[in-house]
Amino acid sequence: MSPSAEPLPTPVARPFFSAVTAFRSGEDSPRAFLDRCLESVDEFEPTVGAFVHMDVKAAEQAADLASRRWRDGKPLSPIDGMPVGIKDIIETADMPTQCGSPYFEGHRSGRDSASVMALRQAGAVILGKTVTTEFAGPSPLGDTRNPWDPRRTPGGSSSGSAAAVACGMVTAALGTQVIGSMVRPASYCGVVAFKGTVGSINRGGSHDGLSQSVHGPLAASLEDAWLVARTIADRVGGDPGYPGLFGPADPPDPAKPRKVAVLRTAGWPVADAGARRAFESAIERLASAGVEIATAESLPLVAEVEDAILSAGEVSLGIVGYETIWPLGAYRELDRSKLSKTASDRLDAAQAMTLDDYRTLLAQRERVRAVFAGLAPECDAALTLSATGPAPLGIEWTGDTVFNTPASLLGVPALNLPVLSVDGLPLGLQAIGFADRDSDLLGTGRWLIGALA
Amino acid sequence: MSPSAEPLPTPVARPFFSAVTAFRSGEDSPRAFLDRCLESVDEFEPTVGAFVHMDVKAAEQAADLASRRWRDGKPLSPIDGMPVGIKDIIETADMPTQCGSPYFEGHRSGRDSASVMALRQAGAVILGKTVTTEFAGPSPLGDTRNPWDPRRTPGGSSSGSAAAVACGMVTAALGTQVIGSMVRPASYCGVVAFKGTVGSINRGGSHDGLSQSVHGPLAASLEDAWLVARTIADRVGGDPGYPGLFGPADPPDPAKPRKVAVLRTAGWPVADAGARRAFESAIERLASAGVEIATAESLPLVAEVEDAILSAGEVSLGIVGYETIWPLGAYRELDRSKLSKTASDRLDAAQAMTLDDYRTLLAQRERVRAVFAGLAPECDAALTLSATGPAPLGIEWTGDTVFNTPASLLGVPALNLPVLSVDGLPLGLQAIGFADRDSDLLGTGRWLIGALA
Repeated sequence: MSPSAEPLPTPVARPFFSAVTAFRSGEDSPRAFLDRCLESVDEFEPTVGAFVHMDVKAAEQAADLASRRWRDGKPLSPIDGMPVGIKDIIETADMPTQCGSPYFEGHRSGRDSASVMALRQAGAVILGKTVTTEFAGPSPLGDTRNPWDPRRTPGGSSSGSAAAVACGMVTAALGTQVIGSMVRPASYCGVVAFKGTVGSINRGGSHDGLSQSVHGPLAASLEDAWLVARTIADRVGGDPGYPGLFGPADPPDPAKPRKVAVLRTAGWPVADAGARRAFESAIERLASAGVEIATAESLPLVAEVEDAILSAGEVSLGIVGYETIWPLGAYRELDRSKLSKTASDRLDAAQAMTLDDYRTLLAQRERVRAVFAGLAPECDAALTLSATGPAPLGIEWTGDTVFNTPASLLGVPALNLPVLSVDGLPLGLQAIGFADRDSDLLGTGRWLIGALA
Repeated sequence: MSPSAEPLPTPVARPFFSAVTAFRSGEDSPRAFLDRCLESVDEFEPTVGAFVHMDVKAAEQAADLASRRWRDGKPLSPIDGMPVGIKDIIETADMPTQCGSPYFEGHRSGRDSASVMALRQAGAVILGKTVTTEFAGPSPLGDTRNPWDPRRTPGGSSSGSAAAVACGMVTAALGTQVIGSMVRPASYCGVVAFKGTVGSINRGGSHDGLSQSVHGPLAASLEDAWLVARTIADRVGGDPGYPGLFGPADPPDPAKPRKVAVLRTAGWPVADAGARRAFESAIERLASAGVEIATAESLPLVAEVEDAILSAGEVSLGIVGYETIWPLGAYRELDRSKLSKTASDRLDAAQAMTLDDYRTLLAQRERVRAVFAGLAPECDAALTLSATGPAPLGIEWTGDTVFNTPASLLGVPALNLPVLSVDGLPLGLQAIGFADRDSDLLGTGRWLIGALA
């Protein structure tokens, strides 16, 4: 797939939650909704390349069934009929799961992951598998492009999920984040991301068994994101041993935060000047709207948190590296030529670590989490950028993760709110919440979107 | 496989740790050791049926390489050349992984699990895949028999691992325990089991992603069991996010316990009279040897622990049930006929649970764990039976798990010590330790075996 000569139309995401009233009245239907998604597929997919596999016929059949259920007043769930994409490290019974790696070329596990099983039970329409980088790591082996500018990366590793949602091919797509794989691509593509508390969504049947990896939706709206996450947690819970996603069945109401902490993080010095200005201007608008702003200067605890998360990137990379000795080591022993040089080099570094090194990093993570938890009684959320700037040019590099590692290391919920822009390209405001208080963060996020839109 | 008319010889396990001196001197070799294992295979396997898949040629080649390394004074590890079996829910690159289920008939994942990758790197000789019950649950779909009496069950779900080790076909075999799947079959078959602290051994690439499931060795000796577990943890750590197995590289020295707690548990009233007598007599011998015995009568904390673990079975079943909504639900949606009635009924019960029900059980588990942890400063270990008696007659039922659920729920290390017997059949003394103090328990176990043998 190469960028077409024709410029793409402006990408527009396709919210579902706001459409269901018309499904109930009969003015609209999930099938008609899907047909509009498929028009976006025709328009964008040849250039964007968000999907690695698509099953239009199965999606049409599922949408027809959903249409009937809405017409009969008996939808299976609030997302009955919602077109969704599934990141291609997550197993699906009827489609291949190829993990962005030649090891998995054509691989079919023959079963649905926990999340996909739940989505199907809720009536969601699974349109296809979205492109992931190699094993959801740093190397993009696919060639997905940013729908806002096909010369640019969509970000990664949930590359296809972000791109597909951005141009309305689906309302939502499952992504995963262990370093910066949901919030950053959502920022680059101008869509919502909801990375929940670690453990909040069951990862069974997905190739990302890392201790700080989380599944969650990239979506056209926060309401859609919440409904997708809740739908999964209701049916299959969180990761084994975790209490799963807490919060109401309906999207949490917008709630104005009393006080927010501004976290500049290690990313601030490397962020584009335009991104910094966009962020500062958003913070000023919040202050004008009466939200109290806590900074490192005004609240010592914020300075303490900023200090604690300075090494988030290094600690996260060490933890994730050690945790991928398997399976990457097993794959490399099978066939060295099928692993990218980046992944192979990282594996070498990880294999040089001892179990004691890993324990030291886990202990460090616990300390950072404890420091951050101290902020909960003080603030409703922490705000920072979602990325150092808009999507960089080129598709060989998925962009800088420096703004994403803190929430990943902390295991706390984080949202990308697509409310900023630089030079006509989307940029996200990142709202970070507190462990197991995902629904509070969603309410704050809804209010922030309203205040900053 | 039906029981042969000829009675089987008395099963004798085959320790490896005590053999390596002769490998060093050249008097013996891993290849000769394997050949002796293969003689046991010829003798026992037609009747016992411990393996679902075996690759003798690959094992011979691996043993030859190990023999050369020992001869050159360059073994890869202390278990270089050790013949091992792998429970058939654990993936192997070169053999099928069939999970004891028709869904997985002939299934090959094409990759090694974390544990198998580590064992190969250490030079272990993988002889084959050992029979598991259906998805390591309650239903035995295979027909493995107890080598001490082929009319009896070997226990489950690590049925083949226990039986293969008991008659010397391998020195050790990987098993898994979430309810009672290692300690009980080890008790019935008269071998050692070492179920480590929850999270201590990396379960990557195994079909038992449950929150209280643990991998570990069934083995001919505690020394062998320790070396197998340490070998894995050294190379691939514990489960992601866990600190992994703590303790020395060599088997911990025997250590006489100062004080042990006797836990009668919910199993006591249903245990055979012979089993109770054997246990009481062992406790008397320990007391005579100067070990202080704490009971519910002499130490209120023991009574508190016994109370707390009374519901271990019920709580464990609830937790495990909820955690198998996936994948069992996904398998059943594919083909109802391939799931046993027992598994299907349990799935129905689990699907009737809510996420809140599950959270309540998790909280209950945390409370029980906290009560038990209070015993650590008082006692070196807790002792109880490993099973209600010797292996029951028949192979349709793998026996009562009532003595095994406490250590499973608690997530603490537990050993089966094959030091008791009833009517010529093996029965185990169960030693239960404290979280992340696995090596202390091993030392206590070694002393107990010496004192009670």
